Amino acid sequence: MKKLVAEFIGTLWLVLGGCGSAVLAAAYPELGIGFAGVALAFGLTVVTMAYAIGHISGCHLNPAVSIGLCVGGRFNKKELLPYIIAQVMGGIAGAAILYAIVSGKEGFSIGGFAANGFGEFSPGGYNMTSALITEIVMTFMFLIIILGATHSKAPKGMAGLAIGLGLTLIHLISIPVTNTSVNPARSTSQALFAQTDGALPQLWLFWVAPIIGAILAGLVYKLVSPDDKID
Amino acid sequence: MKKLVAEFIGTLWLVLGGCGSAVLAAAYPELGIGFAGVALAFGLTVVTMAYAIGHISGCHLNPAVSIGLCVGGRFNKKELLPYIIAQVMGGIAGAAILYAIVSGKEGFSIGGFAANGFGEFSPGGYNMTSALITEIVMTFMFLIIILGATHSKAPKGMAGLAIGLGLTLIHLISIPVTNTSVNPARSTSQALFAQTDGALPQLWLFWVAPIIGAILAGLVYKLVSPDDKID
Amino acid sequence: MKKLVAEFIGTLWLVLGGCGSAVLAAAYPELGIGFAGVALAFGLTVVTMAYAIGHISGCHLNPAVSIGLCVGGRFNKKELLPYIIAQVMGGIAGAAILYAIVSGKEGFSIGGFAANGFGEFSPGGYNMTSALITEIVMTFMFLIIILGATHSKAPKGMAGLAIGLGLTLIHLISIPVTNTSVNPARSTSQALFAQTDGALPQLWLFWVAPIIGAILAGLVYKLVSPDDKID
Amino acid sequence: MKKLVAEFIGTLWLVLGGCGSAVLAAAYPELGIGFAGVALAFGLTVVTMAYAIGHISGCHLNPAVSIGLCVGGRFNKKELLPYIIAQVMGGIAGAAILYAIVSGKEGFSIGGFAANGFGEFSPGGYNMTSALITEIVMTFMFLIIILGATHSKAPKGMAGLAIGLGLTLIHLISIPVTNTSVNPARSTSQALFAQTDGALPQLWLFWVAPIIGAILAGLVYKLVSPDDKID
Repeated sequence: MKKLVAEFIGTLWLVLGGCGSAVLAAAYPELGIGFAGVALAFGLTVVTMAYAIGHISGCHLNPAVSIGLCVGGRFNKKELLPYIIAQVMGGIAGAAILYAIVSGKEGFSIGGFAANGFGEFSPGGYNMTSALITEIVMTFMFLIIILGATHSKAPKGMAGLAIGLGLTLIHLISIPVTNTSVNPARSTSQALFAQTDGALPQLWLFWVAPIIGAILAGLVYKLVSPDDKID
Repeated sequence: MKKLVAEFIGTLWLVLGGCGSAVLAAAYPELGIGFAGVALAFGLTVVTMAYAIGHISGCHLNPAVSIGLCVGGRFNKKELLPYIIAQVMGGIAGAAILYAIVSGKEGFSIGGFAANGFGEFSPGGYNMTSALITEIVMTFMFLIIILGATHSKAPKGMAGLAIGLGLTLIHLISIPVTNTSVNPARSTSQALFAQTDGALPQLWLFWVAPIIGAILAGLVYKLVSPDDKID
Repeated sequence: MKKLVAEFIGTLWLVLGGCGSAVLAAAYPELGIGFAGVALAFGLTVVTMAYAIGHISGCHLNPAVSIGLCVGGRFNKKELLPYIIAQVMGGIAGAAILYAIVSGKEGFSIGGFAANGFGEFSPGGYNMTSALITEIVMTFMFLIIILGATHSKAPKGMAGLAIGLGLTLIHLISIPVTNTSVNPARSTSQALFAQTDGALPQLWLFWVAPIIGAILAGLVYKLVSPDDKID
Repeated sequence: MKKLVAEFIGTLWLVLGGCGSAVLAAAYPELGIGFAGVALAFGLTVVTMAYAIGHISGCHLNPAVSIGLCVGGRFNKKELLPYIIAQVMGGIAGAAILYAIVSGKEGFSIGGFAANGFGEFSPGGYNMTSALITEIVMTFMFLIIILGATHSKAPKGMAGLAIGLGLTLIHLISIPVTNTSVNPARSTSQALFAQTDGALPQLWLFWVAPIIGAILAGLVYKLVSPDDKID
């Protein structure tokens, strides 16, 4: 139960911090943080939570991560569903807090609310094929980083930093393509609040592609480095 | 006494570094550091002090942090008041140094001086409710990060980095809302020097909200992770 | 064989992450990540891979690095050629994925594709001499950082961070001069896809100069710090 | 002698990396790295060298640092003069390389060459008093960070990161005031190459103020934390 509370709070923080920085601060006139600031914010939600709750729940904060760790032999299949539910609920709670903050600005409009999308809902106008490739490859590499940095032979204590900065990197590359998901919980929470015609109808891709990428990474990593024990 | 000198110097640095970067460098034409640079500066004041004075005073630099650590069972109640006094005095000293530097520029005006505010004194025009939610939630999460990253089961030596980057993250999200406080000492020092009609009358919120957030975090963290000893 | 798969994936990631951030996100209107974001992305590809695959292959991701480590007595000459082949193939695979993503945008044009260049193909218009000096010196310092940070007397576990951030630093300095190579694999992959008259004819410099810099660093480091064992 | 070679190379890198990023990349149209990128570059020169040569020479790279460490009881007085000479020579070598790179651009002009200054040579027009306060306080805090983070009770291995990021922070605050020195070697090398009327006549301040700040820090730190051994 403590694990689920930790995953709930952590995913709340990922959504509130990452999507919050995007909605509140990215496009502030002159002084805004831009895509680079949003990329940093997403990564730092993971860095901070990795050290804060990593020793409680492992700090997945992401259904694709939990699935990839299962396939890679690092996470118990029985815990998978409760983890995913806690993550999605945490994401929705984070989005709700963000909604409450944003609605305290006169003349506010929710708009895209940092939801993910492709085609006309891609920030840079990339089509569905680009979105699929991007989300599969980015999630694949995210899981390779996670599986490798938490391997028993990797330097102790640095995994949280490497994984969080990996999420920053993924955002530095791919915000223009899909607004970057690699995380179905983050996509779901924003799609529920976004006021566009695309967020909910396109949500399927941000479950399917990250999960495919994560499963592939689990399989590949086991081949390259099969000799690790479950943490 | 050494502890109090350390807290004084550290909070001086937090205010001089964080608010100084905002006042001196954020809006410099073309080359300015923007909100993202200010967010980084605030976080790095904590990172640098955590490694420089963490082993002396614990490096709180913030009355809300000291209170949250008390509630979480990590800090001795008897030291609370002296710590808070040293932090507020240090903050004021930092603001005074910044005032002296700024006044050496021809035609300078102090203006907001990076003070916190809401309503018409919010950078992005967010109302009091948004400010309350933001400051409570951000300080809550800041304390969760602090309590978790300094837990005996967390990786040794990384807490200072995680906590400082946590403060960077908090600023990446919330500068547009309140100019980001989560720290009553930082709010007080700037309110004393700022030349606006809002800084002092609104100061109460930046004591009340961070302290509420910190107390809640102390209580929640004890529930989730009750088994730690006092450091 | 596992080592070669690791080098392939790692160099794929370096090219997809570094050049991908440049092509997709650097010049995005208003919110783009600029040269600083690209510099961070390149560095983070190395940081993430260092912790993910460092314990498998050593995480060179760069023919000049493998050569410099050979000269410095840290890498076995017999593995050199397979490593370089895996790196160049990985780079090409990364560029191919990037090409597939980019071509999903209506009206896309490949253009320079983040290829390296000098003279009229230098971002800032620097001539061949500047490019030679820059690439030799930058690669020299990159190898000094690598050889020093992985020395047995350097702090354990921090090498990946120092080396990756070193690559970030190198990009912060030298993108305007050559678009920054210091890595023949990264230059080759982009030159093959770029649609300019300069990328392939100028490719020689981005093999010659980095390799000269790396060899010099191996020789100098051995003089300054000759007493280390092969890792 | 190895120590002096290390200090020479390290200070060369500090000047080439920090001032090089300022001269080559800060003001690049649209995509330039700005003051924040320069701040990051200066800090990363120290981070990278700390892990690369810290175990050889201690990685001072700065006469004020060597003097402050002497006063703080951490560095042997007999080594002071050779260190300072190696640092100044390294800085000049770095500036010479930068000069060679810059002069390969058609229509180049050296101009300020990232030299330090005050009054009309301050980027933001701050007067001599502001410059004195800024350089004294910033160097004071830099040495507090260095002395604290390398203290035997501070977490092992993190000092290089904390100190380097401390230099980043100092630049985030003070580039607009003096272009940020806190390092007489860096000021000297740029003043020798700069083509302005102010760089050489104002150089005295960037020796005097940093050294005052460093000496004060050495004295204060000994009072607060007198019980450390020489490293």
